[in-house]
Amino acid sequence: MAQQIDTTIMTVGKAKIDNPAIGPYVTDSPVPFYLDVEHAGEDAKGLDAPLFLEQAGPRSHVYYDPGKTKAAVVTCGGLCPGLNDVIRAIVLESYYGYGVRSILGIRYGLEGFIPKYHHDVMELTPRNVSEIHSFGGTILGSSRGPQSSEEIVDALERMNVNMLYIIGGDGTMKAASAIQEEIARRRLHIAVVGIPKTIDNDINFVPKSFGFDTAVDVATNALRCAHTEAIGAPYGVGLVKLMGRESGFIAASSTLSLNVVNFVLVPEAPFKLEGEGGLLPALEKRLLERSHAVIVAAEGAGQDLLTASGKTDASGNLVLGDIGSFLQKAIKNYFAAKDMNVTVKYIDPSYIVRSMPANTNDRVYCGQLGRNAVHAAMAGKTNMVVARMQDRFVHLPLQLVTRRRRKIDITSNYWRSVIATTGQKLA
Amino acid sequence: MAQQIDTTIMTVGKAKIDNPAIGPYVTDSPVPFYLDVEHAGEDAKGLDAPLFLEQAGPRSHVYYDPGKTKAAVVTCGGLCPGLNDVIRAIVLESYYGYGVRSILGIRYGLEGFIPKYHHDVMELTPRNVSEIHSFGGTILGSSRGPQSSEEIVDALERMNVNMLYIIGGDGTMKAASAIQEEIARRRLHIAVVGIPKTIDNDINFVPKSFGFDTAVDVATNALRCAHTEAIGAPYGVGLVKLMGRESGFIAASSTLSLNVVNFVLVPEAPFKLEGEGGLLPALEKRLLERSHAVIVAAEGAGQDLLTASGKTDASGNLVLGDIGSFLQKAIKNYFAAKDMNVTVKYIDPSYIVRSMPANTNDRVYCGQLGRNAVHAAMAGKTNMVVARMQDRFVHLPLQLVTRRRRKIDITSNYWRSVIATTGQKLA
Amino acid sequence: MAQQIDTTIMTVGKAKIDNPAIGPYVTDSPVPFYLDVEHAGEDAKGLDAPLFLEQAGPRSHVYYDPGKTKAAVVTCGGLCPGLNDVIRAIVLESYYGYGVRSILGIRYGLEGFIPKYHHDVMELTPRNVSEIHSFGGTILGSSRGPQSSEEIVDALERMNVNMLYIIGGDGTMKAASAIQEEIARRRLHIAVVGIPKTIDNDINFVPKSFGFDTAVDVATNALRCAHTEAIGAPYGVGLVKLMGRESGFIAASSTLSLNVVNFVLVPEAPFKLEGEGGLLPALEKRLLERSHAVIVAAEGAGQDLLTASGKTDASGNLVLGDIGSFLQKAIKNYFAAKDMNVTVKYIDPSYIVRSMPANTNDRVYCGQLGRNAVHAAMAGKTNMVVARMQDRFVHLPLQLVTRRRRKIDITSNYWRSVIATTGQKLA
Amino acid sequence: MAQQIDTTIMTVGKAKIDNPAIGPYVTDSPVPFYLDVEHAGEDAKGLDAPLFLEQAGPRSHVYYDPGKTKAAVVTCGGLCPGLNDVIRAIVLESYYGYGVRSILGIRYGLEGFIPKYHHDVMELTPRNVSEIHSFGGTILGSSRGPQSSEEIVDALERMNVNMLYIIGGDGTMKAASAIQEEIARRRLHIAVVGIPKTIDNDINFVPKSFGFDTAVDVATNALRCAHTEAIGAPYGVGLVKLMGRESGFIAASSTLSLNVVNFVLVPEAPFKLEGEGGLLPALEKRLLERSHAVIVAAEGAGQDLLTASGKTDASGNLVLGDIGSFLQKAIKNYFAAKDMNVTVKYIDPSYIVRSMPANTNDRVYCGQLGRNAVHAAMAGKTNMVVARMQDRFVHLPLQLVTRRRRKIDITSNYWRSVIATTGQKLA
Repeated sequence: MAQQIDTTIMTVGKAKIDNPAIGPYVTDSPVPFYLDVEHAGEDAKGLDAPLFLEQAGPRSHVYYDPGKTKAAVVTCGGLCPGLNDVIRAIVLESYYGYGVRSILGIRYGLEGFIPKYHHDVMELTPRNVSEIHSFGGTILGSSRGPQSSEEIVDALERMNVNMLYIIGGDGTMKAASAIQEEIARRRLHIAVVGIPKTIDNDINFVPKSFGFDTAVDVATNALRCAHTEAIGAPYGVGLVKLMGRESGFIAASSTLSLNVVNFVLVPEAPFKLEGEGGLLPALEKRLLERSHAVIVAAEGAGQDLLTASGKTDASGNLVLGDIGSFLQKAIKNYFAAKDMNVTVKYIDPSYIVRSMPANTNDRVYCGQLGRNAVHAAMAGKTNMVVARMQDRFVHLPLQLVTRRRRKIDITSNYWRSVIATTGQKLA
Repeated sequence: MAQQIDTTIMTVGKAKIDNPAIGPYVTDSPVPFYLDVEHAGEDAKGLDAPLFLEQAGPRSHVYYDPGKTKAAVVTCGGLCPGLNDVIRAIVLESYYGYGVRSILGIRYGLEGFIPKYHHDVMELTPRNVSEIHSFGGTILGSSRGPQSSEEIVDALERMNVNMLYIIGGDGTMKAASAIQEEIARRRLHIAVVGIPKTIDNDINFVPKSFGFDTAVDVATNALRCAHTEAIGAPYGVGLVKLMGRESGFIAASSTLSLNVVNFVLVPEAPFKLEGEGGLLPALEKRLLERSHAVIVAAEGAGQDLLTASGKTDASGNLVLGDIGSFLQKAIKNYFAAKDMNVTVKYIDPSYIVRSMPANTNDRVYCGQLGRNAVHAAMAGKTNMVVARMQDRFVHLPLQLVTRRRRKIDITSNYWRSVIATTGQKLA
Repeated sequence: MAQQIDTTIMTVGKAKIDNPAIGPYVTDSPVPFYLDVEHAGEDAKGLDAPLFLEQAGPRSHVYYDPGKTKAAVVTCGGLCPGLNDVIRAIVLESYYGYGVRSILGIRYGLEGFIPKYHHDVMELTPRNVSEIHSFGGTILGSSRGPQSSEEIVDALERMNVNMLYIIGGDGTMKAASAIQEEIARRRLHIAVVGIPKTIDNDINFVPKSFGFDTAVDVATNALRCAHTEAIGAPYGVGLVKLMGRESGFIAASSTLSLNVVNFVLVPEAPFKLEGEGGLLPALEKRLLERSHAVIVAAEGAGQDLLTASGKTDASGNLVLGDIGSFLQKAIKNYFAAKDMNVTVKYIDPSYIVRSMPANTNDRVYCGQLGRNAVHAAMAGKTNMVVARMQDRFVHLPLQLVTRRRRKIDITSNYWRSVIATTGQKLA
Repeated sequence: MAQQIDTTIMTVGKAKIDNPAIGPYVTDSPVPFYLDVEHAGEDAKGLDAPLFLEQAGPRSHVYYDPGKTKAAVVTCGGLCPGLNDVIRAIVLESYYGYGVRSILGIRYGLEGFIPKYHHDVMELTPRNVSEIHSFGGTILGSSRGPQSSEEIVDALERMNVNMLYIIGGDGTMKAASAIQEEIARRRLHIAVVGIPKTIDNDINFVPKSFGFDTAVDVATNALRCAHTEAIGAPYGVGLVKLMGRESGFIAASSTLSLNVVNFVLVPEAPFKLEGEGGLLPALEKRLLERSHAVIVAAEGAGQDLLTASGKTDASGNLVLGDIGSFLQKAIKNYFAAKDMNVTVKYIDPSYIVRSMPANTNDRVYCGQLGRNAVHAAMAGKTNMVVARMQDRFVHLPLQLVTRRRRKIDITSNYWRSVIATTGQKLA
């Protein structure tokens, strides 16, 4: 039921100062919309009544006095195309749109706030961000893992920061929440505005996260190479592992884009290796019929087939088993036993995918996210993120964003198209 | 008021045959949604109540018996990235999804139906479309202008075609309507399904038409070149003309993507050349301050400044005055009179923009449009188009699509961002 | 006869200082080689005996004391891919290789030396050139046309410049010669080292000038678009004008690269429009047989068919007639008279071609040119250019480079391949 | 001494038939040239006198009667950009240039000749090769390893093949030699013409093999990603393994192209891990100074540091130890012991590099190689390859090509530039 979801946006205080940025201005009046049944999957359950969300954009009045405002920007977690574009848009809109003259870049994620790491801050100016969108990654650097909210807010106080732009994934958004709570506890007037980042495209309520298009673009190229390798050898198999810890969107969309994949494996659709409906017999059938095949696996696919390590990384994510190497071995063993001389070419393009500069589409998108984040912060909004839903930019409370992960709805027409494209019949 | 808009989809007849294509299936149950106030602009007026539209996708039952079905595909009007992807998706889904074995490609647009032009039809098979998405344009060829509905339906009858996929712009969708009426008049059971194409992104109710992303991509490259040329000469001006007869979306979005444009001129925002708030004095100011400038003009911008030719092309579109050459001359004359040695480099990349292959994002999109068109036609839907709105694929009646053009809403946050990016102050 | 060609390199003075740059070092010992009969065309006449040229590279001793050296870099004439790469390599090698701390960038070509233009100089440091190779054009700007050698040498004296790196075309190399003579007249110890630039690839003795590969790359894309447009319309003709004032190498090599061109027109091979062996009847034949055609014309092709303007541009080059528009009209008129409904799509990608960043191959090449220019200047070489011939980098006297233009040898296997690829039979 | 090298080209018989292909024709008259001291490295030793080699190109007379000629094409060994371009050029020149109507594609390398593998042959026509250059890999497929010369010549006889085009590396050229000997033993009139392929660029006497430029292009992109990853984390290290079993040209040239590499490791320059001049202390120094680093290693680098497996692959090549994983571990252990929290991102782009389509430059080159191979075969040349040396296409005897491998000359200016670019000081 929609009414269960509280979409109220918190503010640092009442916006009373005339906005120095040009209009037209938007109001806080909510935009109603229905959730996309197909793409939102699980999230859509119980949500057929409209949600009412604040529109993003510049308001007629701002809370902060631009000339006295100090902003900080931090990027956290793994690389994703578009990070530099978001940073750049925040800096340019703050500087040229509002007249904010002091913008700090925090180095290497949340580590940058903590004295013991000795990371200097970086002054961000229009001049030193002007060309950064030509490069992948983040000029600020990043790191994984949480840091003490107290120490972070200590640092914000010491530096006299009025607003924090925090760009990162699920864990980072939870950290942003904790920071905002600490700020509230101390009764400080510091806005915390998030820009959700996930190359896996698994943010709740956000159908397409920034960088996803670029990631699919680059992943598609790896699929093309896998296909080329597969047809280049007798019984050639091209195997590609793509990002996607819990959601296989990159694997699925790149499969749709190229039409060369015969088997696509995602976390949302478990599969077995052997027996009726198993991957290996299906692969054998395909090879006997067409003599080459392409398999793409999201990194989180088939984890039940692997021995769990039980370990977690610095971000608190479970360390996944390596489905790529596992499949490579399984395929070799299976066909060796059948005396079929199968060649497997295994491609893991993950670092290449995530470190590319944003494509044009993502560049426009990131620019809009960054500018809307500035509009929100200047107006005194806090504890929220900017997001695009149904072609509109809106404000979402942090709690809503971290409620659960987006996953592929395997009963959707989207996933059906993927399956139809591959022709795969796995049980 | 939403109730004024009839969104009922017509059908050729009742779908009684079990669908041979794999599920899951969707039902005809309507998807409710609100129009995007920001992007839909004028169209959104009076539409704050939800619209109810049929979802796209495969139905549990089809009207046509696949083994006895003959389909025809035709592409009309100017080139647009993604045409081949749509053709390919129609062929592959028809063949592999439904078992349709006879698919005709009509050559050179509607001319291909008319005997006097002597254009042969082209048999479309999975084999001969398998790689066409690697190439721009349309393997079928295209042409402009209407042809007699009677002659077209004569041809459909002669060829025993059961369903016509018609890909084209505004004029083509009107032709599709006329064809459907002639079919209805003759009481034939031929489905007419449209896939709206417009590189200008000006289709009513469709926030992003296929090929638009790719067009912005390529246009952005031309802007980068214009910027490079501008900084390469003292008082260098890079001038780019982009597509956009009545809607300046390509100019606006490519401006957002690169942040090098100082003046963006679109049909929706009239401007004057001289005097207070005029383009030329503003350009002079910019050159004196920074010594280089980039101007981008949609082809339909500033038509009031040009002498109207009064002519129309084969598609019935008014032949526009050439704003690019006009501005080039105006700039030269203005600065010659001031004895400023200004260099203007004029780039018109139109044919390069429209003839590129679709990028990855458009490729996925076109695949979904093509497949959903087949699902619709097989289910006996007619007089409609498939479209993506708010991340969902739906069926729209032809009348709705041709009701009016989408334009940039110059009071929107989108256009505000464009203006803020350029810093332009024209009156 | 080879002995007629003096390949002696002039020096500013004897190199006595130990080279601070790392070795291994090369000696002044000449590299013998034969000219390439195929590619050098006319230039090869009378040159079957070997030439003996100095190798490029660092010497064991330098003339200039790095800590007291001031260098200047200037880029002249039209844009060409790779200019920024050359600038960057000069700066990095000077700074890191030799320890030169003062490097001046002269703005806007030779204008930058002349007080009346008021162009400031630009300090070049590793930091401000580190990423310029990502961008096309030249960060220094450029201009056409000669300036007074006296005033230029005055400026060099005023700025205490010890060495001038001058990057430009034929006219610029002649200017470099004049500057060197003025320097010699004043008995100054300033080295003048050229890096020849010509997107037309028409420098005497240099089989492939920097940027040419990139230009062919981009030009090829325009040909692909022209082909797409041609097949997209009944009797479709794609017409592309490419750079090539007196030498048609870009047109010829891009034709070889894509195999879609039916007629390639270059300055070296005159053609007629009508009658036996004329372009228009041959085009008609092609259209009747295959219904589409692609024509590529170098800008200097067919000048005898056009009315000469008699004008020259700032660089002293004759202003060419516009062969592209001329052909477009000629084709329209020819087929209008025959009542054939031919569509001509005319693409002029010149500014896009010349303003692109260098591709990988050119980037490596430009880096080597820039570094070798520094090695030469530091060793006190003057009045010369660095060039790659037969996979080796050598020093060439300025006089040799400006002796005459390279042109396509129309009796070569290279041109034969071009003709064979197109199948054209023009008289 | 040059006279020691026999450059005589063998022929199948005297060419008596007028060449149906268009001229101008070349003669067998030899082209004299000196070897490039810098790039040819070891090969240049004792070769300062000119070599005299036959020019490539069409002759006035051919040996084979085109209408009665049957050609076969085979691709062997690992994938390399440009294979499809070479195949395509052979087919188009044979068909259109000479009128040869029967061209067989042998599937999956030399396996395709051997009955027990059951690989069908593929008829090659202009139609089915017309677009293959848009795709990487080889449409024929490939395989590693030798096959019996007797069986191969049996197959050639059975299929009435007159000429065999064999595209492959060192091992393949030795196989071509053996096939030619078997042909000679049986007194058959079958020409064997090789086109040397090596992505490592290690063919004796060939300064740049086809596909190398493209490989450097793609490898450079991986370096850019490694750099982005390195700057994205505190003490970030980007580690890239590139092709190069015995010659590190790809690693060296891509290092030159991007200027982000700090350590380049190639087989020609041994290095040690620890101690004075060791890689690890040097890396530590770099990280302490700049906090990020990029290392690129050719796959054959540092093999003396690894435990030899002693195994060989199907091509007879020694199975190399995995220097990439070895270095990754060594770096981790080294810094773990020092309590420095270093992050290593390891990228192995090999399959992506080798399966890309040829870039424009390679496309032109491959076209010339393919066409010249046809000219040679039609003229009855055998036991030779076509090659480009010093911008000229020539015929080389097979023996010359397989004499030894090209390696980087570590005393050359080329390698010096690489070292200067990285600033590395390893002992």
